[in-house]
Amino acid sequence: MELFSAEILQELHKVERGLIDSIKSKNSLLESESIRMINAGGKRLRPAILINSAKFGQYDEQKVIDLSVALELLHLATLVHDDVVDEAEVRRGDKSTHKLYGNKIAIFTGDFLVTKSVLLLSKYSHKDIKGFSPKYIARALKNICEGEVEQYQSRFKIDVTINQYLKRIKYKTALLFTLACQLGAEVSDCDKKTTKYLKNFGMAFGTAFQIQDDLLDFQGKKDKLGKPIFHDIKVGVYTLPVIYAINSNEYGESLVNLLTESLNEERLNHIIKIIEKSGGIDYSIKLLNEYIKRAEKWINKLPNNEYRDSLQGIITNLVNREN
Amino acid sequence: MELFSAEILQELHKVERGLIDSIKSKNSLLESESIRMINAGGKRLRPAILINSAKFGQYDEQKVIDLSVALELLHLATLVHDDVVDEAEVRRGDKSTHKLYGNKIAIFTGDFLVTKSVLLLSKYSHKDIKGFSPKYIARALKNICEGEVEQYQSRFKIDVTINQYLKRIKYKTALLFTLACQLGAEVSDCDKKTTKYLKNFGMAFGTAFQIQDDLLDFQGKKDKLGKPIFHDIKVGVYTLPVIYAINSNEYGESLVNLLTESLNEERLNHIIKIIEKSGGIDYSIKLLNEYIKRAEKWINKLPNNEYRDSLQGIITNLVNREN
Repeated sequence: MELFSAEILQELHKVERGLIDSIKSKNSLLESESIRMINAGGKRLRPAILINSAKFGQYDEQKVIDLSVALELLHLATLVHDDVVDEAEVRRGDKSTHKLYGNKIAIFTGDFLVTKSVLLLSKYSHKDIKGFSPKYIARALKNICEGEVEQYQSRFKIDVTINQYLKRIKYKTALLFTLACQLGAEVSDCDKKTTKYLKNFGMAFGTAFQIQDDLLDFQGKKDKLGKPIFHDIKVGVYTLPVIYAINSNEYGESLVNLLTESLNEERLNHIIKIIEKSGGIDYSIKLLNEYIKRAEKWINKLPNNEYRDSLQGIITNLVNREN
Repeated sequence: MELFSAEILQELHKVERGLIDSIKSKNSLLESESIRMINAGGKRLRPAILINSAKFGQYDEQKVIDLSVALELLHLATLVHDDVVDEAEVRRGDKSTHKLYGNKIAIFTGDFLVTKSVLLLSKYSHKDIKGFSPKYIARALKNICEGEVEQYQSRFKIDVTINQYLKRIKYKTALLFTLACQLGAEVSDCDKKTTKYLKNFGMAFGTAFQIQDDLLDFQGKKDKLGKPIFHDIKVGVYTLPVIYAINSNEYGESLVNLLTESLNEERLNHIIKIIEKSGGIDYSIKLLNEYIKRAEKWINKLPNNEYRDSLQGIITNLVNREN
């Protein structure tokens, strides 16, 4: 099954053109690195959700595509900066910018993408788009910075609560999905209720998306040998399954003992087994499903039309996501 | 002699407060890292020039301080990102953010400072400030990215011309000084001619500033400069004295031969001697003085008042700068 309907796909093609058009630069390397980042793919989930949200009101193609491009540029910028940070050697199967050209280029390519995002939006004001402010993009980046830094600060910490985790992924991920919905609703002049339902959908979906993403580190993402890579645990980023297990009466203590020792293959396997036995994976799946239900609850309040079905399709695809 | 007049210093104190007030965050590390960056000092040359420019028109304190804070936040952001990039161990004598907490924090602190800069400006439009657009800040960052990346691309290249060097420092440095002058003039509703003279001063001064900065890598003392001498050459960044020497008929070939071999202490000393003998240092000083004269030419067209004297004072201090 296609992830998006033919109508949404048609709009996403315009977003692709918009992305390429937006990153023109007098510096050929900045431009080619930006194009490489754009062409590395990605599902364009945030633009798709923005476009889909906009379809609930008076659809204005030019504005919707501009907003979608700006949002995706910001997302790509954080991916480039994240590559430097995590020293990820591979991002979406392609060589990451920082491995090809070093930190300098990656940082400035990310900065460049941010500026292009801001520049694209700065032609609009609340007079052009109801409720809109160009500072949305800056605030969105601020949220992501705050979430990412909190995650970094919490590395190897064994006293993180589930609430702290949920707050972190709200800032790191969910608020950008919420913004996608909000921008879509505002640009199409949706009524207050529709805007609220869409924003609430965005928050629930974004949270589910990140829980799922974190779960894939245990279940999905595999190395060349087909084994899960457990990248997060290796770098000290403890996501929901780990946090749940740490807080378990039965398994918490032995897990903490293992986590505080230096990691080798055998100890890692032991850690994973304990997390599974503690119910950490099952709990994460349960919470994921709760957020999915919450996302569905909100879209079910929207008018029953093809765009609601399309949002439902995006949810269904999240559940079946394998990478 | 004080770098700035008492009147400008008074305004700069407000900029300091504005900087601290502007970087509030729910994340304590982002806030403390930003404060550390602010408190590490710096001469606030860009705010000082903006304030000074604004004094030539109808001075509106709140707007002038906001613009100055936004400009300095952007400048600080590029310093934080530059620290990651160059792996500079010391920035202004203090430990750089990335050495204390790793790349991740430095990158997101820089991003955070950019967002705060954009957010601060997004409350203004051309209705509040004649000719102003919030996108100025994004465009300024874009210019710096383009200059920095061009410089990185040119590392170890022995075919860079003086014109390419001048273009690079225009984007990397001079355009931000030009913007400081332009913002100051626009916020005070200066007439067209005054605005033009100030902008032209900014471009000439900014160019002189960077030539001087690059010269200090050859002439400045390590303890005062806070970074190793000949740092640029060591990392393959060839600035004006090197570029001049490479293009010299008499010394070019032997210099290129040395530069293309691996660098050791002895070879470095040899390189420095050749650059001196070629007249590369003298030529750079000559060009520096030409840009200083050009900067003076433009301010001499401004009304003859204390603010013109103050700008002249900033120029004089540049000439005597040792760090």
